[in-house]
Amino acid sequence: MVGKTDSNNTLKGHKLLIIAPWDAPAGFLEKLSTSFPDLQVVYHVQTWASTPLPPATLPAGIWDDVTALMTYSTLPTPEEAPKLEYVQMLSAGLNHVAHEPMFKDTKVAFCTANGVHGPQISEWIISTYLAFEHRLPTYLDRQKQAHWDNSGMLNIDDSANKTIGILGYGSIGRQTARLARALGMSVHAYTLHPRPTPESRRDHGWAPPGLGDPDGTLPARWFSGAETADLHAFLGSGLDLLVVATPLTGRTKHLLGRGEFEVLGAAAGVGAGKGRTFVSNVARGEVVSTGDLVDALERGLVRGAALDVTDPEPLPDGHVLWGMGNVIVTPHVSGASTRYFERVLAILEVNLGRLGRGEELVNLVDRERGY
Amino acid sequence: MVGKTDSNNTLKGHKLLIIAPWDAPAGFLEKLSTSFPDLQVVYHVQTWASTPLPPATLPAGIWDDVTALMTYSTLPTPEEAPKLEYVQMLSAGLNHVAHEPMFKDTKVAFCTANGVHGPQISEWIISTYLAFEHRLPTYLDRQKQAHWDNSGMLNIDDSANKTIGILGYGSIGRQTARLARALGMSVHAYTLHPRPTPESRRDHGWAPPGLGDPDGTLPARWFSGAETADLHAFLGSGLDLLVVATPLTGRTKHLLGRGEFEVLGAAAGVGAGKGRTFVSNVARGEVVSTGDLVDALERGLVRGAALDVTDPEPLPDGHVLWGMGNVIVTPHVSGASTRYFERVLAILEVNLGRLGRGEELVNLVDRERGY
Ligand SMILES: NC(=O)c1ccc[n+]([C@@H]2O[C@H](COP(=O)([O-])OP(=O)(O)OC[C@H]3O[C@@H](n4cnc5c(N)ncnc54)[C@H](OP(=O)(O)O)[C@@H]3O)[C@@H](O)[C@H]2O)c1
Ligand SMILES: NC(=O)c1ccc[n+]([C@@H]2O[C@H](COP(=O)([O-])OP(=O)(O)OC[C@H]3O[C@@H](n4cnc5c(N)ncnc54)[C@H](OP(=O)(O)O)[C@@H]3O)[C@@H](O)[C@H]2O)c1
Repeated sequence: MVGKTDSNNTLKGHKLLIIAPWDAPAGFLEKLSTSFPDLQVVYHVQTWASTPLPPATLPAGIWDDVTALMTYSTLPTPEEAPKLEYVQMLSAGLNHVAHEPMFKDTKVAFCTANGVHGPQISEWIISTYLAFEHRLPTYLDRQKQAHWDNSGMLNIDDSANKTIGILGYGSIGRQTARLARALGMSVHAYTLHPRPTPESRRDHGWAPPGLGDPDGTLPARWFSGAETADLHAFLGSGLDLLVVATPLTGRTKHLLGRGEFEVLGAAAGVGAGKGRTFVSNVARGEVVSTGDLVDALERGLVRGAALDVTDPEPLPDGHVLWGMGNVIVTPHVSGASTRYFERVLAILEVNLGRLGRGEELVNLVDRERGY
Repeated sequence: MVGKTDSNNTLKGHKLLIIAPWDAPAGFLEKLSTSFPDLQVVYHVQTWASTPLPPATLPAGIWDDVTALMTYSTLPTPEEAPKLEYVQMLSAGLNHVAHEPMFKDTKVAFCTANGVHGPQISEWIISTYLAFEHRLPTYLDRQKQAHWDNSGMLNIDDSANKTIGILGYGSIGRQTARLARALGMSVHAYTLHPRPTPESRRDHGWAPPGLGDPDGTLPARWFSGAETADLHAFLGSGLDLLVVATPLTGRTKHLLGRGEFEVLGAAAGVGAGKGRTFVSNVARGEVVSTGDLVDALERGLVRGAALDVTDPEPLPDGHVLWGMGNVIVTPHVSGASTRYFERVLAILEVNLGRLGRGEELVNLVDRERGY
């Protein structure tokens, strides 16, 4: 129980080292010591400039009895920290430490910060989509004229009873689904692995309390698979908004190309210039083939696009995407939130409780899968 | 039951006249006749230009046996339509027909289209707020330079655990609350009349199925009253977003003025330039004192504003509000939706069912209250 002492779980004999680029938020250390009265805590502020920390920076012998570590990239060797049981990463990915002996050669539990991006990125997805539908870019331009102008004002298509397809139903996708349901949309979810049972639909990763879709009950339809036909069945299911939220992997590189945009166009069942689907990419630019997207936008196979990530990235000066009237491009900013650190610390607290009780940690990395 | 025949409720002996500026949507008349096989229906398209209809336009004797009427402004006299029981207005308000003998001098049930605006206006509220927080206006300007620029990129404040205050917890306010809850916000609701019991918190007006807050369970705190002290208690409750969604009445004219903005500033507990509350007005411009709002924005008592309605309206050319960096102004467009007519027809269907079963109609106008 966070913030309250569990007399069976005081973390006696445990020592936590936190190496973070920010100071501890007010009250955090007090809260930790109330929750886990016997836990020793050492807090070390590391500037981003010193990532990873040079070996001499930490006091000699600091690692000897560390059992839990929160870090961005600084890791001891297995010999230096013989008692280490649990590493809480400050980042959602851990490619940057995958070569470390502590990761490669031990069974120490590594946990990611996956889940911290759900709120801000789902907000970016929904706000750029609604801004597009409600013609906010046009009205912002008119505002600059300092003149009231509702000429050509059109009825807008609101979202009630529309359909959102979420390609990659993970931590970002699940919170996006929560917002979409509140708007009255129907949710079509896509995962790599099939989710045929209620149990398989649960989210075992961390999400901010009350957010996301922990029980996997929000989608009306579930799709999955690694085959083109699987993907096309999903893309053909009548999507008004398509959210790209998969990781970039060998399988997802250029997952959306010419053939996929043609399926979207055909599913809209209408001629050129009448695309139905608005495409939102917050994953990585390379998941979408840029040339094919531009072509689909020009041919009206899709209705528009919002891109926080592009390929190439940065998007070159003067690239055609910048000037398309039905495209919103932002420079990879959707993931930044003032709540980032607070959320990683919440994951740490959950995991310290589980560590003391001997339970499986949340966001535990499967070394075989690599994430 | 809409769309299915209830053998006890065929509306035998009833005749419905629809006078609307749009054609019936495909399948609608067929659906009505399946639901109510004995209902006679006459559908008359009236252009906005002919509002209200000149008396000669409808066939002679048409009113004799009309029991139900859907209309924007055309009304028979009480003598012309002796069998009329129920009038479904196409508009949310009915000031424009309040002088008609059929309204003033009879007990014929008048029902409004209240509730049809919830989805589109709540979308406008949330998308302008999120656009502001996520700095979309800045990024849209940068996009025009056709150059990738994330300089000065700041972490954004996402909405999880923030607080929204809804001044006027009616059909628009309740759907806004649904979106805010999905974002992880805490909802503070304000109504004129107190809502102390679960029963009093229920919504008796129409809302699109699955939307709004029919049971009144979304707010964490309820406020009410007609006194300044009541309002100030609400405004002082720690609001990150304040939505103005009351009707314009004698009581609500200039409801938000200098004193109220000072309460918001004081509640933020911070110096000038650090306002906490973002103010969103979708009701009527006159509910807010424009000069005092401008002053509060300049002094930093509030964080910013989104205004779909202004006072004066149209906002004059060159008015200071147009150019404020923390203000979004749109020219009274938030209520327009392609789904408008479809929603009013849904209300009509519900009410025809209730009419046949002798139940109280939804959105029934209380002539004493005037709405
Ligand atoms: N724009 C930004 O600033 C920003 C910030 C954070 C993250 N991101 C990007 O967003 C991605 C998603 O983040 P997340 O936290 O939601 O990830 P997550 O929780 O790991 O979820 C990823 C989802 O993608 C699915 N998936 C994996 N491979 C797939 C494939 N080949 N085809 C279809 N679906 C596939 C997974 O399905 P299974 O569960 O069945 O494997 C899972 O549902 C990240 O990987 C990162 O690239 C961007
Ligand atoms: N921008 C647009 O295009 C557009 C479109 C449609 C509507 N509107 C405006 O939005 C307003 C609200 O629409 P709605 O459908 O949500 O209305 P609604 O369902 O009638 O709800 C109105 C709410 O305001 C409250 N209220 C009334 N007088 C008040 C006062 N003096 N102080 C505090 N609260 C008060 C009511 O409380 P009680 O229930 O206790 O009386 C009720 O909760 C409309 O009246 C209209 O002016 C604007």
